[in-house]
Amino acid sequence: MAARLIVHGGAGQPCASLAGARRRGLGRAAENGLAILLGGGAALDAVVAAVRELEDDPAFNAGRGSCLNRDGDIEMDASLMDGATLSAGAVGAVRGVRNPILLARAVLSEGRHVLLCGEGAQRFAVACGLPSATREDLLVKTQADRWRDEGGTVGAVALDRAGHLAAATSTGGTHKKHPGRVGDSAVIGAGTYADDALGAASATGDGEAILRVTLAFRAVSELGDGKDPAVVARRALTALKARGRGEGGLIIVDSLGRTAFARSTPSMAVAYAREDGRIVVED
Amino acid sequence: MAARLIVHGGAGQPCASLAGARRRGLGRAAENGLAILLGGGAALDAVVAAVRELEDDPAFNAGRGSCLNRDGDIEMDASLMDGATLSAGAVGAVRGVRNPILLARAVLSEGRHVLLCGEGAQRFAVACGLPSATREDLLVKTQADRWRDEGGTVGAVALDRAGHLAAATSTGGTHKKHPGRVGDSAVIGAGTYADDALGAASATGDGEAILRVTLAFRAVSELGDGKDPAVVARRALTALKARGRGEGGLIIVDSLGRTAFARSTPSMAVAYAREDGRIVVED
Repeated sequence: MAARLIVHGGAGQPCASLAGARRRGLGRAAENGLAILLGGGAALDAVVAAVRELEDDPAFNAGRGSCLNRDGDIEMDASLMDGATLSAGAVGAVRGVRNPILLARAVLSEGRHVLLCGEGAQRFAVACGLPSATREDLLVKTQADRWRDEGGTVGAVALDRAGHLAAATSTGGTHKKHPGRVGDSAVIGAGTYADDALGAASATGDGEAILRVTLAFRAVSELGDGKDPAVVARRALTALKARGRGEGGLIIVDSLGRTAFARSTPSMAVAYAREDGRIVVED
Repeated sequence: MAARLIVHGGAGQPCASLAGARRRGLGRAAENGLAILLGGGAALDAVVAAVRELEDDPAFNAGRGSCLNRDGDIEMDASLMDGATLSAGAVGAVRGVRNPILLARAVLSEGRHVLLCGEGAQRFAVACGLPSATREDLLVKTQADRWRDEGGTVGAVALDRAGHLAAATSTGGTHKKHPGRVGDSAVIGAGTYADDALGAASATGDGEAILRVTLAFRAVSELGDGKDPAVVARRALTALKARGRGEGGLIIVDSLGRTAFARSTPSMAVAYAREDGRIVVED
């Protein structure tokens, strides 16, 4: 089976000042993920590698470069899901960790729980020996007002050569959010879903609207029976607007290896691997 | 339209010592909810009243009587959803509040966010002027080891005379859970979902498995087209077992007013209003 990967850098308004940096970052993330897949690696490893690259990149609102909450603190959300087993790991409103996606992966690997939030999630990170990060490590100059409508959530979906799917999502959340706010990026079914039988999806956009319509599961559950994933993605965004009262974007790979992306926002940068292995970056 | 209501007291092993108290509590909760519906009140008010009654009842693992986490603390999850608007409110791993369902309702009413967790959720409760509760207020003697396999999560779904649906769920979570663990009861789509066009559901059981299969939304999305809600509930529990690797129970009311409940566990107590208005309690 041919490997497939698509990554996104968040749905929102176009961001002129970061456009170049984001395109380069998404290209690198897609390359990192694709290299793992082409080496015979697992979809789960590929999406984690891609999202980790974007968390480390200050041009995105995830990990380093995350936006500030109402208190001026950084609290991050991340989740990932293994389509082979439906095993999932997620963290919400977590502080003090460098890579929330690695913490979500540790939650998945440990296996007892799916979602850890707040201080308890941070304690789990310490117990796992994951690298910590101070607010200053994560803070990027000029970011205080940067993320108002400019997206910057990141996500990845992949199909590996063994036919397994995975999805991952990570974000700093929304500008001046209430402390303890957990958005769709931490919620399996809303921001992230993967099921080998159907497909994998990562969502971005108005987090509360995405939660109301359970966007990622809604899209994935419509796949199968040969349905076009691009049509499914657009239909899901129609529900997001009509029922959830919000805008956003979605990346999908189905179990046949067909990738799709769609957005109802003015902009969402994505990078994906073409059939010939070349990485394409699009706004 | 005839009003409909069904409440549950958690899926799990039968609990001989609490069976009588639970039956009485579920009956009272159903009566409280039904009185609101028969007075022309909203489904959302009815499910909140029913769940609040069960949170105040020490025979259930929600609000007062919640189980202890690994640290010996009480951290609670709750969520509710309005099927008319898909508006939702939820709290996860929250301490120090007497009625998590009232806090979830305050999150819904405030409208900016859907899910608040941990200390931030508690701060929101204080800002809203909701009654606080110390660990000792919530703690019930002998509960330390009470909840091992005995369920006790609570939930309610209702259809009001205006044809609107609502669902609500509340829990103290799992015995000796990791601090910060948030389960399905706080997650819209997993523990709770309501959509006037289809139906409303509240889930209980293995929370992590319920999260993996997005159980409540999975069930609600299968309703419609005249499908029997009892069949839908059983199918959803089959997916919970086969794909999510867990057991649980589900209560449903569809947009036609048909109620159903199902469980894959040995026991789940429920109470519901018959067409003649009599409250029936069943194990």
